[in-house]
Amino acid sequence: MSAPAIPEAALERTLTEDLETAARIGATGQGGISRFAWTEELAEVTAWVAASLELLGLSTEIDAAGNLLARWDVPAGGAAVMAASHLDTVPNGGPRDGVLGVLGAVEAVRILRREGFEPARPIWVGAFMDEEGTRFGAALFGSRAFAGHDMTEALDKRDADGVTVREAIAARGLDPARVGEAFRAPELAAYLELHVEQGPVLANAGRRLGVVESITGVLGYSVTLRGEENHAGATPTEARRDALVGAAKVILALRERTQARPELRATVGRIQTVPGAITVIPGECRFTVDLRPSQPEVVGPTREWLLATVEQVAAEEGLTAEVRCDYDLAPTMMDPAVVAALDAGAREQDVEPLRMWSGAGHDAMVVAAHAPAGMVFVPSERGISHSPHEWTDPADCELGARVLAGAIRRLAS
Amino acid sequence: MSAPAIPEAALERTLTEDLETAARIGATGQGGISRFAWTEELAEVTAWVAASLELLGLSTEIDAAGNLLARWDVPAGGAAVMAASHLDTVPNGGPRDGVLGVLGAVEAVRILRREGFEPARPIWVGAFMDEEGTRFGAALFGSRAFAGHDMTEALDKRDADGVTVREAIAARGLDPARVGEAFRAPELAAYLELHVEQGPVLANAGRRLGVVESITGVLGYSVTLRGEENHAGATPTEARRDALVGAAKVILALRERTQARPELRATVGRIQTVPGAITVIPGECRFTVDLRPSQPEVVGPTREWLLATVEQVAAEEGLTAEVRCDYDLAPTMMDPAVVAALDAGAREQDVEPLRMWSGAGHDAMVVAAHAPAGMVFVPSERGISHSPHEWTDPADCELGARVLAGAIRRLAS
Repeated sequence: MSAPAIPEAALERTLTEDLETAARIGATGQGGISRFAWTEELAEVTAWVAASLELLGLSTEIDAAGNLLARWDVPAGGAAVMAASHLDTVPNGGPRDGVLGVLGAVEAVRILRREGFEPARPIWVGAFMDEEGTRFGAALFGSRAFAGHDMTEALDKRDADGVTVREAIAARGLDPARVGEAFRAPELAAYLELHVEQGPVLANAGRRLGVVESITGVLGYSVTLRGEENHAGATPTEARRDALVGAAKVILALRERTQARPELRATVGRIQTVPGAITVIPGECRFTVDLRPSQPEVVGPTREWLLATVEQVAAEEGLTAEVRCDYDLAPTMMDPAVVAALDAGAREQDVEPLRMWSGAGHDAMVVAAHAPAGMVFVPSERGISHSPHEWTDPADCELGARVLAGAIRRLAS
Repeated sequence: MSAPAIPEAALERTLTEDLETAARIGATGQGGISRFAWTEELAEVTAWVAASLELLGLSTEIDAAGNLLARWDVPAGGAAVMAASHLDTVPNGGPRDGVLGVLGAVEAVRILRREGFEPARPIWVGAFMDEEGTRFGAALFGSRAFAGHDMTEALDKRDADGVTVREAIAARGLDPARVGEAFRAPELAAYLELHVEQGPVLANAGRRLGVVESITGVLGYSVTLRGEENHAGATPTEARRDALVGAAKVILALRERTQARPELRATVGRIQTVPGAITVIPGECRFTVDLRPSQPEVVGPTREWLLATVEQVAAEEGLTAEVRCDYDLAPTMMDPAVVAALDAGAREQDVEPLRMWSGAGHDAMVVAAHAPAGMVFVPSERGISHSPHEWTDPADCELGARVLAGAIRRLAS
């Protein structure tokens, strides 16, 4: 296989220009971008990315799950080094989330082409279908299919207009019955993903780059505390069994525990009292607990601690407690060799990367079940994400792409 | 004026029988009683009570505000000693709340009649219209009119069917324009009210009778704390400005303060987070604070403490705070001479009364602005109120009526 002839113009384009171009596709007119699964906007941006990669000499296809796969094949064949992310967005989302990882991979290919790199193994660039799950509530659709998950349930989900994923796929000319054919993850030697942090850790630390060591687990609970509904005026303090007082204790205990443990985050996002009347002591309080352990060894103790804490608070306050687990996903460790390659790629750029963990989920955590995976983060200004105000400095985006190129070079040599 | 001829049957009836009779009027079939303002059920029970009092030689009238006023007049005339309460209920209410005070006053008249008591001043028995405010949200309607309040706003309130108080009054054959004529409180020498406690203080102390020294004030606030909405996974604990964590601190501070101060009760009955999503740190939290100070000197410091506490918590948590006062009613002190008369009435019955305060509002607090007032409480089983499970032992009800009779005897001699 001889090196393809690559037009000079394709080699001279920049990541910053590409990000600007992408931001115009699906622009909402309210400052943000909306590109949802299986829509015209997502197809348009995907086709444009595919064309860019073809100009750089890669062969492209849309796989059975709607993922864009671009391949830089080599005579020797073998397992591939893949760099990917997603092109879909949340409603009125920002100009970096997802798209940076795809266009950063395009830029990495450009860098490698410019320097005449000859890979020892295939290099793949990918854009996974529907990471956000905005339209159908079936997040990580493309990467799950790529990793061989059973997609039957996801295919039956419906959007707000009642359209199923199955119908949406067919409407774009693909066969939903063949989604299983997208299972290609075992063909990878390594998986790399550049992404914006979506949190304030890098920004607050004044750092330009993070190398991810693990992607958080997620434990979700619904807690119900029950006490005694009673008259706000006539019931003395010592005679009360106030369910909300119990909830307040649990909320502060969660905060105290996470303050002592940077490897754990906890959020109570939703709370409700029953009967919810101004002059009635809450006889019942329901609230959610979202726990994010970054390390597998944190999961068990966190789960046990939560149950014990709720039980202890209930006993102190004369309440009964019910704790239901709604979701329980283990943390995903990144592969040490891939982490090392990203780390070395950063040092090549004279940047000391911050070792960190991701509190948000990503395609990488799905693919990691089949391939050594790693992620590189660039700072989100003020930690803002899923908002038109999401921003990462173009220079940091370019840095991220250069680090990605460096890591690919190492892993594909 | 010669003593009227009173039928033997009227003198032999008992309070317990009367309470049973009253409980059948407006019975819901769900174990409780519903008698709302200006309804047929309330008119029926009122007419029946009026007839009972007429049999005991009192003259009766329905005043311009729908209050039943029964008078035991004396030749000397002068300011009256009044015993009253209300006959209306909450939805599916219990068999003692309100009605005990009215039928207990009937029983007190019966006791005084049986012993041939000759009062030195008039004795009035009353049943105030719409103490609960269930139908129109215009609580204490009758006693407020009796105390000369401007009722214009209350008259314009509407029930769930859009009927105004004005229309409801007219439908029962009274003239809403004449409600002001119900202002009679200045004609009283003393006002007495027997009521169920509606709280657990007497029951928990194993006491049969309480003499009320003050009726609580009520301060109502709406508090809004604002922090920063953010990603539950990607935001480290130290970077959070979680409005619900602030609310939890305020809730526990309120509890701690009331634990140290039996003269104050505090309730957070309603709470809401914004956006209220499981995986989003609450950017905003709104909650209500209901404060019940029993003594006037507690009001100012409580108000200042709440504002300072919310401000301090907001500063600690990086939040902004908004505190709006929704209601602010001062505590009402009972009259020492009336308290002493009730106390003496209890000791006549060989009962040591508990000196206490009322955390619930009553007609007595309205009338107290014009007349020396006092209240006597009997125990609510398990402190339950505003429920079909509300209960007070018949023997305690009878005791309350005998104490009421003793106090009237003293005050009207």
